[in-house]
Amino acid sequence: MYEVYVAARFEAAHRLLGDFGPASRMHGHTYRMEVIAHGQRLQEDGTLFDIGELRQMADGLAASLNYRDLNEVPDLAGVNTTAEAVADYCWEKLAASLRDRGLDSLVVRIWESPDVYAAREDALD
Amino acid sequence: MYEVYVAARFEAAHRLLGDFGPASRMHGHTYRMEVIAHGQRLQEDGTLFDIGELRQMADGLAASLNYRDLNEVPDLAGVNTTAEAVADYCWEKLAASLRDRGLDSLVVRIWESPDVYAAREDALD
Amino acid sequence: MYEVYVAARFEAAHRLLGDFGPASRMHGHTYRMEVIAHGQRLQEDGTLFDIGELRQMADGLAASLNYRDLNEVPDLAGVNTTAEAVADYCWEKLAASLRDRGLDSLVVRIWESPDVYAAREDALD
Amino acid sequence: MYEVYVAARFEAAHRLLGDFGPASRMHGHTYRMEVIAHGQRLQEDGTLFDIGELRQMADGLAASLNYRDLNEVPDLAGVNTTAEAVADYCWEKLAASLRDRGLDSLVVRIWESPDVYAAREDALD
Amino acid sequence: MYEVYVAARFEAAHRLLGDFGPASRMHGHTYRMEVIAHGQRLQEDGTLFDIGELRQMADGLAASLNYRDLNEVPDLAGVNTTAEAVADYCWEKLAASLRDRGLDSLVVRIWESPDVYAAREDALD
Amino acid sequence: MYEVYVAARFEAAHRLLGDFGPASRMHGHTYRMEVIAHGQRLQEDGTLFDIGELRQMADGLAASLNYRDLNEVPDLAGVNTTAEAVADYCWEKLAASLRDRGLDSLVVRIWESPDVYAAREDALD
Repeated sequence: MYEVYVAARFEAAHRLLGDFGPASRMHGHTYRMEVIAHGQRLQEDGTLFDIGELRQMADGLAASLNYRDLNEVPDLAGVNTTAEAVADYCWEKLAASLRDRGLDSLVVRIWESPDVYAAREDALD
Repeated sequence: MYEVYVAARFEAAHRLLGDFGPASRMHGHTYRMEVIAHGQRLQEDGTLFDIGELRQMADGLAASLNYRDLNEVPDLAGVNTTAEAVADYCWEKLAASLRDRGLDSLVVRIWESPDVYAAREDALD
Repeated sequence: MYEVYVAARFEAAHRLLGDFGPASRMHGHTYRMEVIAHGQRLQEDGTLFDIGELRQMADGLAASLNYRDLNEVPDLAGVNTTAEAVADYCWEKLAASLRDRGLDSLVVRIWESPDVYAAREDALD
Repeated sequence: MYEVYVAARFEAAHRLLGDFGPASRMHGHTYRMEVIAHGQRLQEDGTLFDIGELRQMADGLAASLNYRDLNEVPDLAGVNTTAEAVADYCWEKLAASLRDRGLDSLVVRIWESPDVYAAREDALD
Repeated sequence: MYEVYVAARFEAAHRLLGDFGPASRMHGHTYRMEVIAHGQRLQEDGTLFDIGELRQMADGLAASLNYRDLNEVPDLAGVNTTAEAVADYCWEKLAASLRDRGLDSLVVRIWESPDVYAAREDALD
Repeated sequence: MYEVYVAARFEAAHRLLGDFGPASRMHGHTYRMEVIAHGQRLQEDGTLFDIGELRQMADGLAASLNYRDLNEVPDLAGVNTTAEAVADYCWEKLAASLRDRGLDSLVVRIWESPDVYAAREDALD
């Protein structure tokens, strides 16, 4: 089994809804988004998937969240912006472009700091 | 599938028992402990598991090993303190608090340096 | 000449006032604060300054900014929260505790991301 | 399940064959090779596999690629040196020494930069 | 005294001329360029120098070297591409844009790997 | 002014003498030693000082401390092994080999963790 990985970054504010102590106050993070695509076979050109193309997808998505208050991003309206929920959102956005491209599954990790992340991993059916 | 990750640190001495060359001498590491919990579904508040609570568990465990000679820690009496054995010990300690909390499995990685770790991953039955 | 260094972290939101493009929108960072104290001579116990004490000072200051919107921190009222201005503020706070302790100068660096920081360095007269 | 991890580094030039834009030009990377071996049970000495021995294997392989143009390495003749293909090559080399040693599977990750890697994971049958 | 820092990256091949052992062979690095500008006073907007503008300068320079064989870059013709010489070259390029902007001095560091760099620091007269 | 930098690592145990709280217990660190040499002029071959040679010096010194209890290292007998004192010791060892080599000054930083270091900087007279 093969995998390819790219990382991108966005710097955003947010606040959690509910009883999350200090995380319920407006604060922010230098987010790191890691994207990992899995597949069974390399293509004839020696790639699983063009890393340059994967990077453009990740960079584009990160740019849409960069220098934003996540609670104000239209696509996240009504979402409690936990790291899990942001991973969920990014997973869906990226999966939409990665299905039917010879890949089996996709992981998206959202790091809020070097010591904390949440991730979603699912098949690309 | 979702996962949440936290990291903690402890600075400890140890020596291995047996034929491990220089690692059989008293030496030490700036250990990094990574804790990853997996589960299938997010709760209504948008979390898999409260990362703040997971962090407190990891920090508490790391604090109990911090600034210690691992060969003198009572809970590790009779244990050859390989990175694998330390991972085993930390896995058991954390699993005791994480069972029946809606999680499927748990990974604990023990880094002895930025270039070496050992890990244990098992189901949280 | 000797120096001792400690680092602390805080995760905060802010927005710049003025014509700073996207940085004028509410956003956030995982800030890293680096504190470096310089002096000429080690004391009899082999230290320039007790790193444990320096760390407590840095951690205390970071905690006062953690999980905050910097534009709402009372001590920063009226300050345009550029990285330079945050470095200035932290420098003054730390210098107040470090004068007359046998140190010559103090550096405070405020990292907004792994690729950007601003710093202030001045004598501890 | 247990795993042990080591990392090694090599600094090499290469160019891709085919339509990869700027990556088709001669360029280079500070490569980081990560090696992860999985197994079910610890041995009596508290190890899954001697990390010191695994490190020697990884260091030896990295040394054979260090300060080289990958397109000129005899073992890579005819290979399009994508990160996937380099991972494939390193996986085969390491697997040859790791079979029948009580391990289940092996992962090799080849990082071209801190933001990009490709990996191969397969059973050690 | 204040300073602002930005970092950029380029992935390039090169070979040294002369008796540098393996470094005389074609090889490559994931280079990291760090740029630090010093000055005495903050402006009214709370900045020493607009970090966004400094970043564009560094990114532009890094892009001109990215995915290149440094020995083939026209501006480096006749230069032995040691890390010191690359730092020299980048220092001159950036200094040309930073003079008469209220800054005192400039540092450029060229990292060939996380364990090696060379730097030039000089006044911006 | 130019500088060249190399880093090396050693994993060692130690305990402080005196009233340093938990640091008075036997513990350990993954130490990182940074060595920076300064000089005014590049040589004809485009180097300030051969980084390969500097690296060998740093690696040799680090190896002599690796997998040791610093309190048992003969050269450190009678030394309270604070990070400052270890920096002092390493500075003297390296300076002995770097004098009269066209360099002006030398910095040695001893990191006990990614968040703490002590350093010595002095002229190479």
